[in-house]
Amino acid sequence: MSHFFRSAAVFFLLSMLSVPTAADEGMFPLSGLEGLDLSGAGLQVGPQEIFNPEGLSLVDGICKINGCTGSFVSPQGLILTNHHCAYRAIQEASTSEQDFLAAGFAAASLAEEVPALGYTVRITASYQDVSDAVLSAVQAGMDPLERTKALTRRRNELSLQAEQENPGMRGEVAEMFPGVTYMLFLYTYLQDVRLVMAPPLAVGNFGGELDNWAWPRHTGDFSFLRAYVGPDGQPAAYDPGNVPYRPRRVLQVNQEGVSEGDPVFIVGYPGRTYRHRSGAFLEHELHFRLPAVVDWNGWLVETFEALGKDDRDRQLKLASRLRGYHNRLKNYRGKLQGLERLQLLEVKRADERRLQEFILEDPQRAKENGQLLARFEKIYAARSLTTEYDLWLYNFLHNAYAMRTALVVWENAQERDKPEAEREAAYMSRNLHQTRQRLELMVQGFVPEADARILVELLRRGGSVSQVADLDTLAEIIGTDQGEAAAAWLAAAFQTSVLMDREFLVRAMAMDSGQLRACGDPFLDLAAALYPAHVAVREESRRRKGELDQLQASLLAVKRSYQGQDFVPDANGTLRLTYGRIKGYAPRDAIWSSPLTTAAGILEKETLQGPYQVPQRLKQMITARDFGPFASPEIGGMPVNMLYSTDTVGGTSGSPVFNAAGKVVGLNFDRPWEATINDYTWSPRFSRSIGVDVRYILWLTWKLGACDRILEEMNVSVSP
Amino acid sequence: MSHFFRSAAVFFLLSMLSVPTAADEGMFPLSGLEGLDLSGAGLQVGPQEIFNPEGLSLVDGICKINGCTGSFVSPQGLILTNHHCAYRAIQEASTSEQDFLAAGFAAASLAEEVPALGYTVRITASYQDVSDAVLSAVQAGMDPLERTKALTRRRNELSLQAEQENPGMRGEVAEMFPGVTYMLFLYTYLQDVRLVMAPPLAVGNFGGELDNWAWPRHTGDFSFLRAYVGPDGQPAAYDPGNVPYRPRRVLQVNQEGVSEGDPVFIVGYPGRTYRHRSGAFLEHELHFRLPAVVDWNGWLVETFEALGKDDRDRQLKLASRLRGYHNRLKNYRGKLQGLERLQLLEVKRADERRLQEFILEDPQRAKENGQLLARFEKIYAARSLTTEYDLWLYNFLHNAYAMRTALVVWENAQERDKPEAEREAAYMSRNLHQTRQRLELMVQGFVPEADARILVELLRRGGSVSQVADLDTLAEIIGTDQGEAAAAWLAAAFQTSVLMDREFLVRAMAMDSGQLRACGDPFLDLAAALYPAHVAVREESRRRKGELDQLQASLLAVKRSYQGQDFVPDANGTLRLTYGRIKGYAPRDAIWSSPLTTAAGILEKETLQGPYQVPQRLKQMITARDFGPFASPEIGGMPVNMLYSTDTVGGTSGSPVFNAAGKVVGLNFDRPWEATINDYTWSPRFSRSIGVDVRYILWLTWKLGACDRILEEMNVSVSP
Repeated sequence: MSHFFRSAAVFFLLSMLSVPTAADEGMFPLSGLEGLDLSGAGLQVGPQEIFNPEGLSLVDGICKINGCTGSFVSPQGLILTNHHCAYRAIQEASTSEQDFLAAGFAAASLAEEVPALGYTVRITASYQDVSDAVLSAVQAGMDPLERTKALTRRRNELSLQAEQENPGMRGEVAEMFPGVTYMLFLYTYLQDVRLVMAPPLAVGNFGGELDNWAWPRHTGDFSFLRAYVGPDGQPAAYDPGNVPYRPRRVLQVNQEGVSEGDPVFIVGYPGRTYRHRSGAFLEHELHFRLPAVVDWNGWLVETFEALGKDDRDRQLKLASRLRGYHNRLKNYRGKLQGLERLQLLEVKRADERRLQEFILEDPQRAKENGQLLARFEKIYAARSLTTEYDLWLYNFLHNAYAMRTALVVWENAQERDKPEAEREAAYMSRNLHQTRQRLELMVQGFVPEADARILVELLRRGGSVSQVADLDTLAEIIGTDQGEAAAAWLAAAFQTSVLMDREFLVRAMAMDSGQLRACGDPFLDLAAALYPAHVAVREESRRRKGELDQLQASLLAVKRSYQGQDFVPDANGTLRLTYGRIKGYAPRDAIWSSPLTTAAGILEKETLQGPYQVPQRLKQMITARDFGPFASPEIGGMPVNMLYSTDTVGGTSGSPVFNAAGKVVGLNFDRPWEATINDYTWSPRFSRSIGVDVRYILWLTWKLGACDRILEEMNVSVSP
Repeated sequence: MSHFFRSAAVFFLLSMLSVPTAADEGMFPLSGLEGLDLSGAGLQVGPQEIFNPEGLSLVDGICKINGCTGSFVSPQGLILTNHHCAYRAIQEASTSEQDFLAAGFAAASLAEEVPALGYTVRITASYQDVSDAVLSAVQAGMDPLERTKALTRRRNELSLQAEQENPGMRGEVAEMFPGVTYMLFLYTYLQDVRLVMAPPLAVGNFGGELDNWAWPRHTGDFSFLRAYVGPDGQPAAYDPGNVPYRPRRVLQVNQEGVSEGDPVFIVGYPGRTYRHRSGAFLEHELHFRLPAVVDWNGWLVETFEALGKDDRDRQLKLASRLRGYHNRLKNYRGKLQGLERLQLLEVKRADERRLQEFILEDPQRAKENGQLLARFEKIYAARSLTTEYDLWLYNFLHNAYAMRTALVVWENAQERDKPEAEREAAYMSRNLHQTRQRLELMVQGFVPEADARILVELLRRGGSVSQVADLDTLAEIIGTDQGEAAAAWLAAAFQTSVLMDREFLVRAMAMDSGQLRACGDPFLDLAAALYPAHVAVREESRRRKGELDQLQASLLAVKRSYQGQDFVPDANGTLRLTYGRIKGYAPRDAIWSSPLTTAAGILEKETLQGPYQVPQRLKQMITARDFGPFASPEIGGMPVNMLYSTDTVGGTSGSPVFNAAGKVVGLNFDRPWEATINDYTWSPRFSRSIGVDVRYILWLTWKLGACDRILEEMNVSVSP
């Protein structure tokens, strides 16, 4: 173990400890574990067993796999994660002859495991408080944009330096409290990931969009992947000669499962939360951003469904994107409804009125922060004026694959000659491989009709956005008529563009601006023309962040002195612990949802209206009650999904759900509709998470997948 | 009290007693009360307090009001029933200036109460077993059609005779077990009914079609009507000089309400059940009739919604019919799904296989009934061949108001000269007034565009029904091309027809066939042309009933000897008792619905997607928790709706829900979606009924309707 690892333990951020919160609220950072009353929460494991930089701990058995979390469940690098996290890998592995999404996939041996293009695995190795080093890059009174840029550059420098000192690892400086606390995380970083086993989509996504964000649930949302390394044990890109990765720690599953009321905890990588933000921010979300996202994703869902209706090939190409739009649409609708139900804006506004009174009570506080809340208001009032335009430009440059590809290629030419630490993240050397893989995926998923529909619709919508009308460069290329003329321009562009040609793209990624201009590709030219507008929006956003970060730091400080307590930092994609219990909830007046569903419920749903196709084999297995050692005597059958009161958001998909003793009893994959509010607040009544019961996973792996080798690897015995 | 009343008590049908059933199953006829273990069911009232032909009982306070049930809740003939039962009366009372559906209605005095056109009230006065008298009209070996006709004629004769002996009353011979048991019911019959009070539609139908057939529910589905009689106390048609009816018994409400687990019972008029029918019948329902009804009503809903979309006047005219189509559509979908969930056909088929084995075990039984089940199969196999045509013809003659009006006028001319007892029911003298009122309602609700859409669509659909193609008379009038030519014929017909002219209709109802022919009205001519086909279908149906009744009688007999127990007769629109408890249910795996909803749930629903508009005033009342003496300490607020395990079907809408002591605690109005199966079977898990908590009714009447005079009449005190 390197010196770095050992030194990390010294840097516990003591200010984050002893945080009183509502029951079960909190995504606690690793630095906060020591201060938690884990045994009071019913856990039998202590902080050292969860994370121990001096030895082995559960964290060594947990990985971040793209936007999800995964668990190492065998000494051979076997990873348990969600079906929806492996969805793209399964889709990519499928051919027109063999549809693994529909049929499921099970590699009979290591040799049959299929590379999961674009998948990478990170394992948190250590962390270190680098707040001073980061903040020394900025001075009071700096221009806000320069401030943000300087912080980003310094964070990049520290990351790169750490990577140089620890070859093969990834460094990442995470912002815990903007403008206050920064942590350098070091990750073991694996790039050869393969698909091992996945149930049929009808199991892995049982209930489809209807059951997504819903409870009660009966979805077998799991899959097995495997991480590989070079024969020398070092991380390496995909190579047939690579060997399975040997994780430092293997997580054990608990075949006995759990019961209602049992304590559980989750360790995973939650993405983003906004709980410490101001009322002005929330109002902007509620009145501007969320409704706009709902509106646009609603259009995308409708359009993509229509595009795939009579063309199976096209439908398959669009499937993954459509699923994403559906998911976001339902999630955002849930947020809007949930926040309305909780009247969160009113609550937050009332809190801030009381806070303002507190500020004004003391002359010194009044002098320092009397205008604090007003400044938030001012920033978001200005922000609201450009939200529609900002989203329009973002969608125009990112939603159509041809445009997004053009943007990447053009931006690559702008960034490639900058120093590493100053580049946009996607163009830093360490990320370029992934960026190229994303281009490849766009080429594979390119549907010109979808692009055309998106761009035509956005041009139409742009007609009512004044800042779009001001984009002279757009008018120069497409013309001022955003109706027929624009459609004609687009039709011609799709005819002449060679951008989505795989070989051209490879060459284009090596060209500079002049060479790209010389290509005369219409989408490249359009991207180049719009690029200054894109950069301007980004810089404005960074300038705003520069201002907000300082305000936010002041807000937290004054709240801390008002409430006399500390806060858990908002989620930021770094490893967190959350604990709770197996627990039902009351989604509505007179309804109680209990926390364990059963296989009988799968057959029950089959008789209801909805996307409830049960594979014949599964039906037989359930009807035969052929549950082996995995049945639960308590619920009198096969448990399927579980509900628990931990605090999760997107990113904890695929996280292991541990019982009190630290054994895996479930696999986190979703939240109920009412808990889509978790991004903004915690509700003791509504905040729940949904997991697959590990007994269902083991049973399906054994009986449906016939993957005895996986159970053996996991040391699971099926003899009664 | 007449001799007739006193003698009735002697005729208890002892064979119906001691019927073991699943917990809470059973709609027990009055004749079966004595054999029930009411105290075992938790009731404090005995059979005599429920029905006592020698004295006063609860039954004297209960009435049948059109297709619903109602309760007399004041000595001045005040009737409590559902909002949806009074819907048409509220609609009729509304004008373009005053929309009582939207705003609600409250008459400040007797003088302001508005006549409810077409509403009649019946109160069960007595019953008498007349099986021998009825069955003496038929002999073994009779032609089945003649048999049905003879039984109907005899039942009519007995009814008319009873009415002659009891002037002003209505007689009705009900079929309890077809071909076995017949009961003569005598009803007090009131024809002047007026609208007293109704909450706004947003309260009375809160949740609209989304919440219809659904639990949890928050609907104030109640209204008050009043029955009037002539100044002499005798039943009379509407006259301004009439006075309120004085019911023999006034039902008392219980302001304290009920709690979970409390015993309750219902006395009401359930319409039809089919629980004793054969597997062959059920299969026909599942595979032919129910899907066809779903399909056609789905089309009607879609079409009527489109027709009303941009035309508020037309929308109002179609509202009541549209609501009926919605209701049937959802109900029938629920039946299909529920029967599938319970696998009722498979269960029934398995039962019949065992029954068949039992029959064949004994040579005598085998000789008598060995072919019994096979004969059911044969009848329904033949039936299936004409179901599509039968439904087509029925819909063609009944769904478009012009056609239905033409049919009534034409049939009236055919029936008017027959002896009373041989006429179709609608044309018997005692029913003609109502038939005329129905014509009037059709004139008021006539929307030519709706008629045209229906007839064009039916002509199009008829193209694939062979028996329709064989209707030469249809082809003669409309032409064989059922596309454009038919549409042209219809367009011209709507131009030239005078049928929907109110004055013409009155005259037409006095004409004979020749005079009607001479009018040359296209719809009359079409109805006359199709009339023989209509009669043929009806006669075939009666012939089938003649056969089935005898088979059904044999089936019950052999089942009785197989199971060693007796049966409760299927519901048939006569008064029944059913008891159960305030009880939640598990509609789906991992969901428990508790049995009392609260006013807080109303505000909660307002934040959900759906037809949940809460009137401002109600919102204020709920937010202010201004519940007066009606709040429930147990649930910590205002109870709204209740769920209980009684056995109900359509027709028990508006029935009082009594507590153990026989006080009114609720008003029955619906069932959950899962309980739409009640027509065919009883399910301990799913069979529940939904009522309005009487405390919510009283609170709304007091606070929202400001109808203190109603509370006073009901002897309800609002002082805490």
